[in-house]
Amino acid sequence: MSGTIYGVGLGPGDPDLISLKAARLVTQADVVAFFRKPDRPGHARTIVEGMLKPGATEMALEYPVTTEIAADDPAYGEALRPFYQASADRLAALAAEGRDVVVLCEGDPFLYGSFMHLHSRLKDRAKVEVVPGISGMAGCWTAADQPMTYGDDVLVVVPATLDEGSMIAQIETADALVVMKIGRNLAKVRRALSIAGFLDRAIYVERGTMADQVVMPLTDKDDDEAPYFAMVLVPGEGRRP
Amino acid sequence: MSGTIYGVGLGPGDPDLISLKAARLVTQADVVAFFRKPDRPGHARTIVEGMLKPGATEMALEYPVTTEIAADDPAYGEALRPFYQASADRLAALAAEGRDVVVLCEGDPFLYGSFMHLHSRLKDRAKVEVVPGISGMAGCWTAADQPMTYGDDVLVVVPATLDEGSMIAQIETADALVVMKIGRNLAKVRRALSIAGFLDRAIYVERGTMADQVVMPLTDKDDDEAPYFAMVLVPGEGRRP
Ligand SMILES: C[S@@+](CC[C@H](N)C(=O)[O-])C[C@H]1O[C@@H](n2cnc3c(N)ncnc32)[C@H](O)[C@@H]1O
Ligand SMILES: C[S@@+](CC[C@H](N)C(=O)[O-])C[C@H]1O[C@@H](n2cnc3c(N)ncnc32)[C@H](O)[C@@H]1O
Repeated sequence: MSGTIYGVGLGPGDPDLISLKAARLVTQADVVAFFRKPDRPGHARTIVEGMLKPGATEMALEYPVTTEIAADDPAYGEALRPFYQASADRLAALAAEGRDVVVLCEGDPFLYGSFMHLHSRLKDRAKVEVVPGISGMAGCWTAADQPMTYGDDVLVVVPATLDEGSMIAQIETADALVVMKIGRNLAKVRRALSIAGFLDRAIYVERGTMADQVVMPLTDKDDDEAPYFAMVLVPGEGRRP
Repeated sequence: MSGTIYGVGLGPGDPDLISLKAARLVTQADVVAFFRKPDRPGHARTIVEGMLKPGATEMALEYPVTTEIAADDPAYGEALRPFYQASADRLAALAAEGRDVVVLCEGDPFLYGSFMHLHSRLKDRAKVEVVPGISGMAGCWTAADQPMTYGDDVLVVVPATLDEGSMIAQIETADALVVMKIGRNLAKVRRALSIAGFLDRAIYVERGTMADQVVMPLTDKDDDEAPYFAMVLVPGEGRRP
């Protein structure tokens, strides 16, 4: 009997926002895997701190590269492909031995998640099951106490890694907007929002739902320093009976 | 001491996908409110069947109108405004008596949710707290076992109630697409997807994560009958190392 590889969404950061199903899988798991940068605890792992079964085997999948190489540089894919392949092989080997593995995922696994690169490599050779999670963006708009989409509002979700011209074009078609993956891209995001006429409505959220969350109008933020766990929200203004 | 009005996201339908926080609030609530159409159980209420405390007070907030009047007809707002106002007043009165109220919400409360119309009427006169939930769309792409956004993919979320021309323009700018609120609009959605060149990639999901869910390529669906709890997904095809 082969085991199952679970890709488990943990939500935006507050452990109380983990689903009943995810909490059960995490607390009962014998093997728990998670992505992290070398020498960092790993964000998904941090969310479940204190929840793992005593003696659970922990398997850190360490990215060989993160932001040192631009994501559109061919070297980026060349570094990550063998890493994802080797990680998938490690998990498949455990499943073949009959062991279940829980892969911890931030937010929802299928929304810009690293687990997707394991899923595509595993789904035809192992039993893979995904548990959806509360997305980081839902955590952030809740942290901002900000309803996002009304009536016929169109919501556009844009990664800040997009080039400035494409970003402006995308923002201009949006009623409600989420800009993810802020990190080093905040100056570009600010310019694009300003050109598209959205800057005054923009809300900046850092580590939404976590103990040290930051929420403020983007125009109140004096610098362009932002962590990886940051996003910008522009709420819709559609029909409100 | 006044009470708190909680807008509690319950996720896409499977009760196992409720968050720990939401489950605690729901199982301990003395007063539970929920929207429904007259003579219907109410979808949010159905999700928590069997979870309420014995003797909990249930307060059904019954829409005076749903799809009989088009949402862009002024009569729609005229019918709903007094209903939302009266509902907000009922909840505010309970909070003023010191009672907490849990308002049950499908998916995430701040994503096209009716609770937003109570939130705006209550936030300045009562203590209101929102608990985010797993969105219906995350439930649906998980049900379809379908990763949605890779790398720089832009995700566009479009309500099917939008006019056909605007819908086509929005679809054309998307890398990944979610069309919500299908109901009677499936023929229009099909035409718009076809004109924008997305029809072949479209996946139809009905009641995602619920016991009777339906998932199929949209081109395999022979009719244009769809329930309210249906959506169409077009996964992104971005960078995949
Ligand atoms: C690679 S994506 C993964 C998204 C995740 N799968 C989800 O569903 O939210 C990482 C980005 O998510 C956003 N993010 C996720 N959770 C967040 C939070 N709690 N606060 C702020 N941003 C968050 C940030 O923009 C970050 O750069
Ligand atoms: C008024 S919106 C509310 C959305 C909700 N607040 C959320 O976060 O998903 C209702 C629409 O959500 C979509 N929906 C929500 N849950 C769904 C599910 N489990 N399966 C299919 N569609 C769903 C349908 O398109 C439906 O018309």
